[in-house]
Amino acid sequence: MNIHDLETPSVLIDLDRMERNIARMQERCNSLGLAFRPHTKTHKIPDIARMQLDAGAVGIACQKVTEAEVFTAAGINDIQIPYNIVGPQKAARLADLALYNRITVSADNTAVIAGLAEAARANEMTIRVMVDLATDIQRTGAPIEEVVELAKKIDADENLHFAGLMVYPSNPVVRPVIQEALARLGEAGIGVDSVSGGGSGAALHAHEVPELTELRVGTYVFNDWSSVGKGWVTPDDCAMTIMATIISHPTPDRVILDSGSKTLAADRWDNAHGCIVEYPEARIYQLSEEHAHCDFSACETRPDIGECVHVIPVHTCVVSNLHDHLYGVRGETVEAVWPVAARGRVW
Amino acid sequence: MNIHDLETPSVLIDLDRMERNIARMQERCNSLGLAFRPHTKTHKIPDIARMQLDAGAVGIACQKVTEAEVFTAAGINDIQIPYNIVGPQKAARLADLALYNRITVSADNTAVIAGLAEAARANEMTIRVMVDLATDIQRTGAPIEEVVELAKKIDADENLHFAGLMVYPSNPVVRPVIQEALARLGEAGIGVDSVSGGGSGAALHAHEVPELTELRVGTYVFNDWSSVGKGWVTPDDCAMTIMATIISHPTPDRVILDSGSKTLAADRWDNAHGCIVEYPEARIYQLSEEHAHCDFSACETRPDIGECVHVIPVHTCVVSNLHDHLYGVRGETVEAVWPVAARGRVW
Repeated sequence: MNIHDLETPSVLIDLDRMERNIARMQERCNSLGLAFRPHTKTHKIPDIARMQLDAGAVGIACQKVTEAEVFTAAGINDIQIPYNIVGPQKAARLADLALYNRITVSADNTAVIAGLAEAARANEMTIRVMVDLATDIQRTGAPIEEVVELAKKIDADENLHFAGLMVYPSNPVVRPVIQEALARLGEAGIGVDSVSGGGSGAALHAHEVPELTELRVGTYVFNDWSSVGKGWVTPDDCAMTIMATIISHPTPDRVILDSGSKTLAADRWDNAHGCIVEYPEARIYQLSEEHAHCDFSACETRPDIGECVHVIPVHTCVVSNLHDHLYGVRGETVEAVWPVAARGRVW
Repeated sequence: MNIHDLETPSVLIDLDRMERNIARMQERCNSLGLAFRPHTKTHKIPDIARMQLDAGAVGIACQKVTEAEVFTAAGINDIQIPYNIVGPQKAARLADLALYNRITVSADNTAVIAGLAEAARANEMTIRVMVDLATDIQRTGAPIEEVVELAKKIDADENLHFAGLMVYPSNPVVRPVIQEALARLGEAGIGVDSVSGGGSGAALHAHEVPELTELRVGTYVFNDWSSVGKGWVTPDDCAMTIMATIISHPTPDRVILDSGSKTLAADRWDNAHGCIVEYPEARIYQLSEEHAHCDFSACETRPDIGECVHVIPVHTCVVSNLHDHLYGVRGETVEAVWPVAARGRVW
C-alpha cells in the first residue's frame, strides 16, 4: 500500500527513523551500563515494544494497569507501572497480572502500600513495590523524610518486596536527593535493588546521575517538535508525522488543514501546534477540533487545496492516544498498519 | 450496576440533566420556528442522537464523513456535514453515503465543489451542497464577494443541489453578512433552501438572527465548565462529570487525581482544568497525561487517598473523543453503557 492510498489525516511512522531512534537509545544505555526500560505510553503498540525489547531493553513501562494488561496479553512479561495503584478493584487487577508476570509498581504513601499488601495477601503472592521519590516537578513522590518509613513498611510486609527507588524525571538536579535517600536506606539496613530514573531530557544527562541502575524513556522512539525545540534532537530524528490535506484557503495567508486538535492534540510549542515539513515557515497558530489554522504569510509559495502535507506534532504520546491506527512507512510504502492496542486505557 | 463498580477515571452522564438539556434546546428551537439539528461531535453516540431526534430534531450534524458513516449505520438518515470534503477518496465515500441517505455538505471554494460534482457524476446522483460563509472566527468560509459565484457553480451543476448557506458560528455579529449574502443570491435569482447556523453561544441569540432556518448545536447536550464560565448555563446543567480518585497527597495542599490530560483533555478555563464538584474551591492547576495536579489550599477540608470525586470538564466534546465508553447514570445507578461509536473518526 502507498501512503496516498490512506485517507488524511493519518499518523505515519518513518520506520528508518524509528529504528535508528531505538538503536541509539539502547546503545546509549548500554554504554552507561544502564538497564533500559522504554515507556510504552508513547506508542501503545505491542509490536513496537517488541522491537525495543529485541534491541536489548530489559522490559517496558506502562502508566496504568489496563495498559499493562494489553502488553502482557501480547506476551511481554516484565512491566513496571510507575504509578500509585489505588482502590481494591485496581489492586486486585494488578495482583492478577503480577501472578504470572514480573510486575513492579511504585507508591508514595502508606495507604497505597496497605492496599497493595491486601491484594497480594488475598492471592498469597508477593508484589514488587518501589518508593516514588519526590522531585522538582512536584507531582507525586514521597519527601525524603518519608522514604525510609515507606521502604520499611514495604520491606516488613511478607507479601510485598521493596524493589528500590523510582524517580521522575531523573535530571541531575535530583541527584543529591537520590544520594540522601540511598544513604538513609543504607543506614536503615534496607537493600535497594534498583534506582529507576526516567524522562527524555533526563536520558541525555543520565551519566551525571551514576546512582541510576535503570532508565525509562518514552518519547525518544518517535521524538516530536517539543523534543526539537528543547534541543534534544533534530527534525530528522522525528519519526512521527501527521499526513494532512489542505482543505481551505480563504485568504492569501490563511490555510486550513483537515487535522485539528482531535488529530494533533492541543499541545503548543513556541506558539505553534507543530511544524509543517513542506512549509517550515508556516505557523499552525490555532486548532479547532477538525481544523488546523495556519498562517502562510512567511512562506514564499502557497499550497493548493487538495495538497498533502506532513506535520511533526508537538507531543507524540498524546497523538498516539487519539488514533486507532498508526502506519509504519518506508518512503511512500506502508509496511505496517498497527492498531493502537493500548489507546484510551485510562484505568 | 452502581457507579462505584466502575473503575476510575470514568466519564459519567447524568441522565436527568441530559434529558432536561435535550428538551430545553428543542423547546427553544420550536418556539423560534427553527429546525434543530444537534451536532453529534459532543457525544459521538447513536443512542443519544436517537434521543435528540425523538425530542424533535430534524436530523443531525457530523464533522467528518466517517462519523456520518457510524450514524447512518445506526439508521439515522438526515445528516449535515458542515465541512469541505476534499480528495477523490473522501468524495467517493461521501457519495456512497448520499446515495441512500439525505446528506448535505458545505464548500467554501471551487476546488471542493468540482470534486463533489465529479463524485456525484460518477454515481449518476445529486449531492446537496451549502455554501460556507465566512464569519468573524476566521476559519473556513467564503468571503461575501464569492458567495454568489460559488452558489451559481453548484446550482449550474446537474449533479449538485445548492442547499443554502452554512454559517458558524451564527452570532448576531454575522447577521449583516447573512443579509447581504441573501440579497445578492436573490438578485442572482438563486433560491436558498436553508440558512443553517450553529454554535452553543449563538443558540442563545438565535432570535436576533431571524434569517436562520436551522440551528446546529452540540455542547448543550452535556454542557461543560467553559459553558458555565461563559454564563450560558449553571453548574447544575452540566451532565458530564469525570469520576476520579485521589491517588496521592504529597503535601498538605497538593492533591493528585488519576485523571490527567488523557482523561480530561488539555483544555483550560479560568486557569483551571475543570471543577471538582465536591471541592469547588480546589483548583486543577496542571495536568500530566495520567495525573491531575490540584491545589487544595483554599479548601476547608482535605480529601483522603482513595476518595472519589467528580470533575466537570472544561470541554465535553474532546473528552468524549478520548474515551471508549460513556456511562449514563441516574443517582448512583448506571443505566447505560454507551460505546463512543464515532470516537476517533478523523477522516
